[in-house]
Order: sequence, then C-alpha cells, then structure tokens
Amino acid sequence: MNPTLQQTMLVAIEDELKRQVARLDQPHMKPFHDMLTYHMGWTGEGAGPNATGKRIRPLLVLLVVSSCFDGESKKENSSSINWLHAVSAAASIELIHNFSLAHDDIQDNSELRRGRKTLWVQWGSPMAINAGDALFVIANQAMLDLQKHYPPEVVVRAATILNNSCLELTQGQYLDMSYEERTDLTMEDYWPMIGGKTSSLLSTCTQVGALLGYAQDAQIESFRLFGYHLGLAFQVQDDILGIWGDENLTGKSAASDLVEGKNSLPVLYGLEQNGGFADRWRKGPITVSEVNEVAELLEAEGGKAFAEEMSAQETQKALSYLQAANPRGEAGRIILELTNMLLKRKQ
Amino acid sequence: MNPTLQQTMLVAIEDELKRQVARLDQPHMKPFHDMLTYHMGWTGEGAGPNATGKRIRPLLVLLVVSSCFDGESKKENSSSINWLHAVSAAASIELIHNFSLAHDDIQDNSELRRGRKTLWVQWGSPMAINAGDALFVIANQAMLDLQKHYPPEVVVRAATILNNSCLELTQGQYLDMSYEERTDLTMEDYWPMIGGKTSSLLSTCTQVGALLGYAQDAQIESFRLFGYHLGLAFQVQDDILGIWGDENLTGKSAASDLVEGKNSLPVLYGLEQNGGFADRWRKGPITVSEVNEVAELLEAEGGKAFAEEMSAQETQKALSYLQAANPRGEAGRIILELTNMLLKRKQ
Repeated sequence: MNPTLQQTMLVAIEDELKRQVARLDQPHMKPFHDMLTYHMGWTGEGAGPNATGKRIRPLLVLLVVSSCFDGESKKENSSSINWLHAVSAAASIELIHNFSLAHDDIQDNSELRRGRKTLWVQWGSPMAINAGDALFVIANQAMLDLQKHYPPEVVVRAATILNNSCLELTQGQYLDMSYEERTDLTMEDYWPMIGGKTSSLLSTCTQVGALLGYAQDAQIESFRLFGYHLGLAFQVQDDILGIWGDENLTGKSAASDLVEGKNSLPVLYGLEQNGGFADRWRKGPITVSEVNEVAELLEAEGGKAFAEEMSAQETQKALSYLQAANPRGEAGRIILELTNMLLKRKQ
Repeated sequence: MNPTLQQTMLVAIEDELKRQVARLDQPHMKPFHDMLTYHMGWTGEGAGPNATGKRIRPLLVLLVVSSCFDGESKKENSSSINWLHAVSAAASIELIHNFSLAHDDIQDNSELRRGRKTLWVQWGSPMAINAGDALFVIANQAMLDLQKHYPPEVVVRAATILNNSCLELTQGQYLDMSYEERTDLTMEDYWPMIGGKTSSLLSTCTQVGALLGYAQDAQIESFRLFGYHLGLAFQVQDDILGIWGDENLTGKSAASDLVEGKNSLPVLYGLEQNGGFADRWRKGPITVSEVNEVAELLEAEGGKAFAEEMSAQETQKALSYLQAANPRGEAGRIILELTNMLLKRKQ
C-alpha cells in the first residue's frame, strides 16, 4: 500500500469534513457545533484517530475518481479532472454515514461508540436527533457543493444517487428494527436489511466516484456493483467481529451483538440449524456471563464458518466487478489492497 | 377567494405528496409506508382534511410560480411555464415541514398533533425517528424530481435553497431546545429561533416558487422577503393562539403553551415586564388548573396586545415585499387574500 496518495486524500477529506461542519460555527451555535465535532471524533474526551473511524467511504470515493483517469491521457476532460474536485462528495457520504450512526445509537439505546459516550448520552436524545438531522442536511449541502467544479447535470445526478441510497438506508433501518420483535427470521431476511443498511451507501461511494471521474455508464455500473458486494462482505465481516472479535480492537464489549440480540448472519444461520444455539436464543436475552459459552456453541454449530464463507463469496464478487471496472494507476492498486485488507480486518 | 385555482392546486399537491411517499410502497415495507401515510393525515384513526393540515406551504409555492407568469405574455419561456411542473418542489417543502413535525413531537414529548396520536406514540421513538428521516430523504428526492421539467442549473439552485433552509431549521430547533434550560431569556432571543423554525421554510416556499416561475433575481428576493416576514407574522399568531386560542379550533389543549413552558413571544414580553406573570413563571411549571388565571394575568400585563402588534407589523412588512414582488393574475390575488386570512386566523 502506497501511503502517499492515500494519506494525502485522508488529509483532504478531514479538512473538507471540518469545513462542511463549520457551517454551524456561528454566533450562539457553539454547543450545537460542538455536538457535531464531538460526534465526528475531533473534540471532547477520547478525540483523535481512534474516534474518527477509518473514513473508508470517502477514501473509496476519491480513489475511484482518481482510478478513472489515472494514467489515461486520451479521455476527454481528463486533464481537467482532479480527485480534489470531488472531495465535497466524499465528505457528503461520510456525513451521511455519521448521520445514520447518530440516529442508530438512539434507536439501539447504545451508550458507547468507538469506546466513547454516544451523542445522546452526552447531550440527550432530543439534541442528538437534531444533531443527526443537521449532519444529514450538511451532507446534502456538501454534495451540492460539487457545483463549484462539475456541470449541474452531474451534480443533480450525484445528489439523486445519494438520496436514493439514503432512502434504502431508512428501509434497511426499518427492517432491522422490525426484526427485533420477530422470532421467525431466516437468512433470507438478512440480505435486504444489510443491503439497505450497509451496501447501499458503499455502492454510492463507488458509483458517485465513477460518475465524478467521468466514467462511461457501463464502467459506473461495474463500480456500483463492486461497492455493493464489498458492502455485503464488509457487513458480514462486521457480524463475525461482533461475536468473535477482540474487544480491545473493536472498541465494543466482547460478543455484544449476542447480548444485544442482534439478528446478524451467524445468528440467523444458527437459528436455521435448530440446534443447541437456536434453543438457547429462543429462550430470551443472552446474559454477559454466558456469552462466551453461547458464542462457542454457535461456532461449533457452523455459524462462524458459514459467515466467513459468505464474506469470502461476496468479496470474490466484489473483486470480479472491480476487475470489470478496470481501475487504473496508483489509485486502482490501492482500491485492490484496501478491498483485500477489509476482508482480513480484525476491527 | 377564488376556489377554483386554489382547489385545483391543493388536489395536485395531495396527489404528488402521495406519489412521493409511495416510494416506500414496496414489498416488506407496508408498516413503514403506513407510518408516513398516517403522519401525512391520509390513513389511520382520524385521517382526513383535519389531519393533513392546511398545506399552506406547498400552496404558496405553486401560487408564486403561477403569479410570476400569469397574464404576462412577453416573458421568455412563459408559454412553457406551468405551475404543475413545480408540484414536486411544492411537495418537497411540505415533506420537510412534516419531517420536522415528526422529530419535533419526539423532542417535545408531544402526544397529540391535530387531535391525533403522534407518530412516536403510535410506533415508538426509534421508528418515528426513522420515519422522519425518510420524510426528509423523500423531500430531497421530490426536489430533485424537478429535473423532469427544469434545466439542471435551476434544480441545483432550488435544492441548495432548500437545504440551506433546512440547516436554519435545525439551528432554530437547537435554540428552542437550549432555551428550555434558560431563565434569562429576552425578546431578542425570540427572533433567531422562529426565524429558523418557521420563517426560513416559508421564505423557501416563495423564493423557490419565484425561481421556478423564472422570475428575475430582484423579484425572487422580494418574494423571499415576503415569505420570511409572513413566517414571522404566522409564528407570532401561532404563539397567540397557543395561549388564548380556542382549543376546539386549534386541536391543542387550551393554553397548552403555558403548561408546556414554551418560550413564546407573549411569555418573553411578560418576563421583561417583571410583573405578576414573571413572578409566577419563574416559580416553576404552570399547572392545568391555574392556566386560565395565568393567561389572563399575561393578557392584563400587555403580552397579548404586544404580540398582536408584532404580528401586525410583520404582516405589513410582508405585504410591502409582496407588493414589490408584484404577483400577477388570479394567483396574485389569492396570495394576497391568503396573507390577510393568515393574520386573522383562529386556528
């Protein structure tokens, strides 16, 4: 992995995010602005790189933009394309991600995120709902800021892709919450939920990136599908880490997904086996004291291996769409490395 | 008031709102779609015209569009302008209004709206937060639907105005919530709050309407200021009705604003007088049994008359900007009548 281009992009992303959030840096608005800078990981207790998250989504946007023209001189417009011109779109998608986290934490009653108190714990739910709303608005404003560097028809198209994806996000969120009351879930219920909650936004990263790299429609579609399957692989991996991950690395308490009753892929697999795990799960909430035992039971009944296989399959699909998208140059190499890294991550 | 044009517009608005919300009318999404149709006033207990609200905002959008070209044949593009082309923008702003109501009701812990159970009471806060988010997304999608009838540079401009206004909405909401803990408020604190909470969106109605009527920049600005001051007048009127309104007409319990401790203009005026009302207010929450007495005290100390005077002043400003905007034809006449009606409303 070449640290130079990636690092340059990450710095540009962070600067742009701060510039966008500074829309609230106005008289009488300091506590409101503080809520957003805290949530973004820049201020307050525990601020710093561990609190910001990995910024994978905006990085992917800029890498795809860059990979569409990098090394190619024939393409029309290519001399005027600069990944930096797309940085407000990259920030936009990261802001959408952070908006959804802010509301998600309220909905799930989660008190910690990345080892820090969540927004609603710090400022109360009413303020946290509003702060989430503001992140959503600023995300839209950031996408519309593309008008400084792109023609209006491209801006309208990017904003349309973004909002279509946001509706899928709310649909995924709806399914997730509605599943909490259900006891009849199967693995078929899993994919539409994570398609909405995770894949939709990741496919927006790659689709918008290709659009802003002036790719042709077929290439844009390959990039979109790459992002979509990468998202599925990513989420299944997250599900595995949520049960068998190292809590020192994930920042969550060990096996918290089991305690929280999350309908993750390993759990749905285990339920379909109708074995010891399913018996225990249907009896009611898993307590912290029994969580290791239940995790081992689910692993013994094949839940971990199955999820790992699904994650590998989705990664393979992602990689074949990536090959079809044919990303170029240094950015293209980094996208491939990043994809491989995401599959092998421990946090 | 001519019922024909106005009625035609209201039917078109309702149709378009249903069409936009039907984005959620998909497999496995029925309860989610139901939440939105309930909140919009179309389904569930108490559904009907009393539940939908007056649709003043979208009506204003279409009336302004129509008033920009009505009766004028010289204007370029005028033959191709049709207010119906702007109906998705009108729906967009009404959806933003309804998004803000859905989240507002959670934040204020309000159990009733227009005499019906609020969204969060019916489905719980987590679902209501998500339903509000979906309304916000669909509002953005509706605005972007303008691309069917308008050039992309106009769509980008309209979407930018909308989202700038939404950020002001979250700022007004922040101020409103932050005021709950304050005991040192003055009337100066009032205007930025309602500027954000009410006027910003009303000014977006008239500004976007003028933009979509292909008005010149000076005329767009006059329309924007008309909407802004109309919004201030409208909100002050709402404050008066919230204390001295007839509960059978407003659908709220009588003087509920006093019981809820709302920092409305009459209350802030009363506090600045430092008389009997201020003494009582500062002692703690007003109970239902004493609410009539406190309302009378505030009226005797001039709170009602002052607010009525402010509302009249803002209406005058609105009317003079409206005159400068020079709305034409039947739509222009209806805008004037609507403005006068809003000042005299009892609900």
